[in-house]
Amino acid sequence: MENLIVTPIIYKDGAVSILDQTKLPNEIVYIDLETVEDVYNGIKQLKVRGAPAIGIAGAYGLFIVARNSKVNTIEQLLTEIKLQGDYLISSRPTAVNLEWGIKRIINKLSKISFQSLNEIVNFTLKEAQLIQKEDEETCFKIGELGATLLSNADNVLTHCNAGSIATAKYGTALSPIYYLKDKGKNIHVYADETRPLLQGARLTVWELMKAGVEVTLITDNMAGFVMAKKNIDAVIVGADRITANGDVANKIGTYSIAILAKEHKIPFYVAAPLSTFDLSIDNGNLINIEERDKNEVIFIGGKQIAPKEVDVYNPAFDVTPSKYITAIITEKGIITPPFSQNIKKHFD
Amino acid sequence: MENLIVTPIIYKDGAVSILDQTKLPNEIVYIDLETVEDVYNGIKQLKVRGAPAIGIAGAYGLFIVARNSKVNTIEQLLTEIKLQGDYLISSRPTAVNLEWGIKRIINKLSKISFQSLNEIVNFTLKEAQLIQKEDEETCFKIGELGATLLSNADNVLTHCNAGSIATAKYGTALSPIYYLKDKGKNIHVYADETRPLLQGARLTVWELMKAGVEVTLITDNMAGFVMAKKNIDAVIVGADRITANGDVANKIGTYSIAILAKEHKIPFYVAAPLSTFDLSIDNGNLINIEERDKNEVIFIGGKQIAPKEVDVYNPAFDVTPSKYITAIITEKGIITPPFSQNIKKHFD
Repeated sequence: MENLIVTPIIYKDGAVSILDQTKLPNEIVYIDLETVEDVYNGIKQLKVRGAPAIGIAGAYGLFIVARNSKVNTIEQLLTEIKLQGDYLISSRPTAVNLEWGIKRIINKLSKISFQSLNEIVNFTLKEAQLIQKEDEETCFKIGELGATLLSNADNVLTHCNAGSIATAKYGTALSPIYYLKDKGKNIHVYADETRPLLQGARLTVWELMKAGVEVTLITDNMAGFVMAKKNIDAVIVGADRITANGDVANKIGTYSIAILAKEHKIPFYVAAPLSTFDLSIDNGNLINIEERDKNEVIFIGGKQIAPKEVDVYNPAFDVTPSKYITAIITEKGIITPPFSQNIKKHFD
Repeated sequence: MENLIVTPIIYKDGAVSILDQTKLPNEIVYIDLETVEDVYNGIKQLKVRGAPAIGIAGAYGLFIVARNSKVNTIEQLLTEIKLQGDYLISSRPTAVNLEWGIKRIINKLSKISFQSLNEIVNFTLKEAQLIQKEDEETCFKIGELGATLLSNADNVLTHCNAGSIATAKYGTALSPIYYLKDKGKNIHVYADETRPLLQGARLTVWELMKAGVEVTLITDNMAGFVMAKKNIDAVIVGADRITANGDVANKIGTYSIAILAKEHKIPFYVAAPLSTFDLSIDNGNLINIEERDKNEVIFIGGKQIAPKEVDVYNPAFDVTPSKYITAIITEKGIITPPFSQNIKKHFD
């Protein structure tokens, strides 16, 4: 089934295309990124989403800048790439991987003596492909390691979309499920719809169905009852940021599910690459939680579902204290409590 | 503010009208019930909803039958009322209060000797008004008693709509809040939107705003984080059925919130009239949970949000074991643990 796993960014014969995730699940459309504006808009309008996938798209953006450039000198081209890199970074200022991917290429460019414009074009392409390839390998490894924890699981619950289409391939939380499916084991996934933006209903359900993985959609408020009634063996989610003590910032709703898992004695796993850890932050209380527009809650697909004037609290993320987390699955190993100590070991 | 509390069924100058709750919150429309078919459709199409409100609407339905009748004898009219009563009951077969309200009037009719057709018309009207009045008094009493538990609360969280528009007036879970507001105390309510049918977003938020109660709308998956961050003093919900041991069947999501409340050491209150108790059922495991159509989850207001072919689990209710419940507020007193014993006392 390996070939059924959806990849959100494709480079082929000189062309870069992305899956337009805003159209899912109603339309499956890949759009060509021909100009740097296409890349900027694709990221800004959430056509490509998920921190790793955004980083990859940004990296390909620099290749597109180099390829399309009309300048005459190497110096001019390097300057243009740098300027357009800043432009691309501004498309989603809080996406850490975007800045990381673009700066990684620009730093490398500054350290090499190029002989021709074409060399720069080829270099940016190779670097973008490398970032994509590395992310795919990281996700695969998370899948391989995570599979050891889920090898006896029949029913797994997940939240939001930490799937293949948020990364180069395989995803983080969904990677162990794809890995086991590929090895012939069936795992049935319960996917929370994940209000307000419905990433579970729109994206997770869709990519799992595409890959032939059994999936059942539930509303977020059903998670507790499903745990009580449906023999859930594990919960697995992704992470937006993990602090030095193992606290996890992730999509709103993750914290509630972690508490429900504890009450039902179900293991709660977080799958995330080491790049998600931010050891400069001691614990989750220090993470600033983004509050988003109230209309994300009041309107669903243009349809108004509550009085327009109502007060709304709409945090995009929540923080799950490490005490609720059974293990964190990274590409370099599975981290278990005591988290502060064991996380540190991975960065020494 | 007493006069700002919305009532869903109004009898005035010979006419019965209901608030069309399917149009809320976008349109506030009261529709006249002129024929028995109007009553049947109003109940079936959920224009009037909430067990007590449905019972009242059904009772007024018999008055409308009597008033509109073209028959010539008392016997013919009583037969017609009985037949049309069965027709009304069939509009929502699982609504216990509907059958109860209609049978109560029909039983009384069978025991009285009427002298004229007009006497029967007047009697059905008086009985419907009595059922409405009794429910209003029951709800008021729940509010008065519940207020003693919430007198120091600043922030309360509720789920679904157990409000004024589900009853004659005041509601069950919302009644203590209206009571305290009327006495000059402000309580801020966090309302779960309550997927899939969004009764919290569409109805609870609307009726609280109409009455001038401060309310903040959240998605269901925010409840845990709100408890962690917003100093929630209590959770209060209604109930569809309460078993002999105090287990509570209520709108899907109630169980999750009860666990989250326990984890945050927040009292979890259930507000319900004694008519909600079903002592013939020993415990919540014996309650059959209705599973509803998958399209309730896949579509929101006609908008498709997930692949049409996806498997969906859509239980309408869940069961909260009594161990998570701090107290049950009834019109005859507040019931605390041990529930089996203390519930029994109210029915001896």
